[in-house]
Amino acid sequence: VPARGRRPSGGADVREAILASARRLISEVGFERASMRAIASDAGVDPALIYHYVGAKDDLLVAALVPPVDPAQLLAGVDAIPDRTGEELVRRVLNVWESDPEARRSIVATMRAGLSNERAAQALRDALGSTILAALRRVVAPDHEALRAELVGSQIAGLILGRYVLGLNALTSSPPETLATALGPAVQRYLTGDLGPADAAGSGREVSGPGL
Amino acid sequence: VPARGRRPSGGADVREAILASARRLISEVGFERASMRAIASDAGVDPALIYHYVGAKDDLLVAALVPPVDPAQLLAGVDAIPDRTGEELVRRVLNVWESDPEARRSIVATMRAGLSNERAAQALRDALGSTILAALRRVVAPDHEALRAELVGSQIAGLILGRYVLGLNALTSSPPETLATALGPAVQRYLTGDLGPADAAGSGREVSGPGL
Repeated sequence: VPARGRRPSGGADVREAILASARRLISEVGFERASMRAIASDAGVDPALIYHYVGAKDDLLVAALVPPVDPAQLLAGVDAIPDRTGEELVRRVLNVWESDPEARRSIVATMRAGLSNERAAQALRDALGSTILAALRRVVAPDHEALRAELVGSQIAGLILGRYVLGLNALTSSPPETLATALGPAVQRYLTGDLGPADAAGSGREVSGPGL
Repeated sequence: VPARGRRPSGGADVREAILASARRLISEVGFERASMRAIASDAGVDPALIYHYVGAKDDLLVAALVPPVDPAQLLAGVDAIPDRTGEELVRRVLNVWESDPEARRSIVATMRAGLSNERAAQALRDALGSTILAALRRVVAPDHEALRAELVGSQIAGLILGRYVLGLNALTSSPPETLATALGPAVQRYLTGDLGPADAAGSGREVSGPGL
């Protein structure tokens, strides 16, 4: 934990430089191989400063993974057109990563680090639960809030995986707007649609596919 | 590469034991920390046997990640009820992981290893492209085949991530059938639905059936 009150002048900059280097190295070589020494070297600081400003490697992981955008802010007004909330959500999250290389490195680092082992997964799970999934629960239908939020999260995570982490051809080469319209209705359904027979006895089934 | 022709009696069993240990350790501690020595020890063999039967650590990664189910077989007849193809696809893939702990370890190991760094991501990308995405392309509508297959892949990957790797509450506690009906129509849309304005280019709301 950084000693906020006793920071030397420029301390916030040092901390940001350390976190930026952590994101860059974790996204490139993975969490396990991104050593404290290499991160310090990349940031141009003494390794001891990492401990001073951020903490041990686990703390560094959590701090580096903090999303550069506040989820509540990202989602503000996302449901202005209620039946296009899904599309707008996909558009906004893509816009963050497309317009900001640092945010893109952060999300790739998050996926790589958060999935590398169980300890890191726990950190990611906690971070997701307290930020993104919590924010999403404010825009979903009141039935099955948690499941809806996690379904949306699963599709967004899969998109990040395909486009930014694995770099699959079609997902990477498609313009963001194509992806917003392709993914939007699916996300919309998770947010507010009928989730199927298991969702509510007697409620109709929404079939969005072709009826042959 | 295993020397298939010169295997001693029981060689296939030794190889399987090595791969099972690799999956278990990679899924638990991640690819970087799953050492050849630890895998050999877990499998009860000399480390040299890993090199003999499977190869270096990269080869071990690819071999351990080979899905225990043939994707073509998994998808056979999945489109028997065309407008329920998405639901049946989710049901089948969940059934593989729910019924077979070894398959579940394999998929968690795949995600953990394949995302840990760029080299591993390339191995996962190649494996996906040549098996799962290729098989999926046979059940999608002919327009935008690659994008459709990758959209389906992204949702399935996000589901694996939430349910088996991160263990998010609602995705983990929901019965498979709930998930099949919740995710089915979204996957159906990726397979055969109208992908939105960017898709059109004169084709309108084309909803051709699967099964090419």
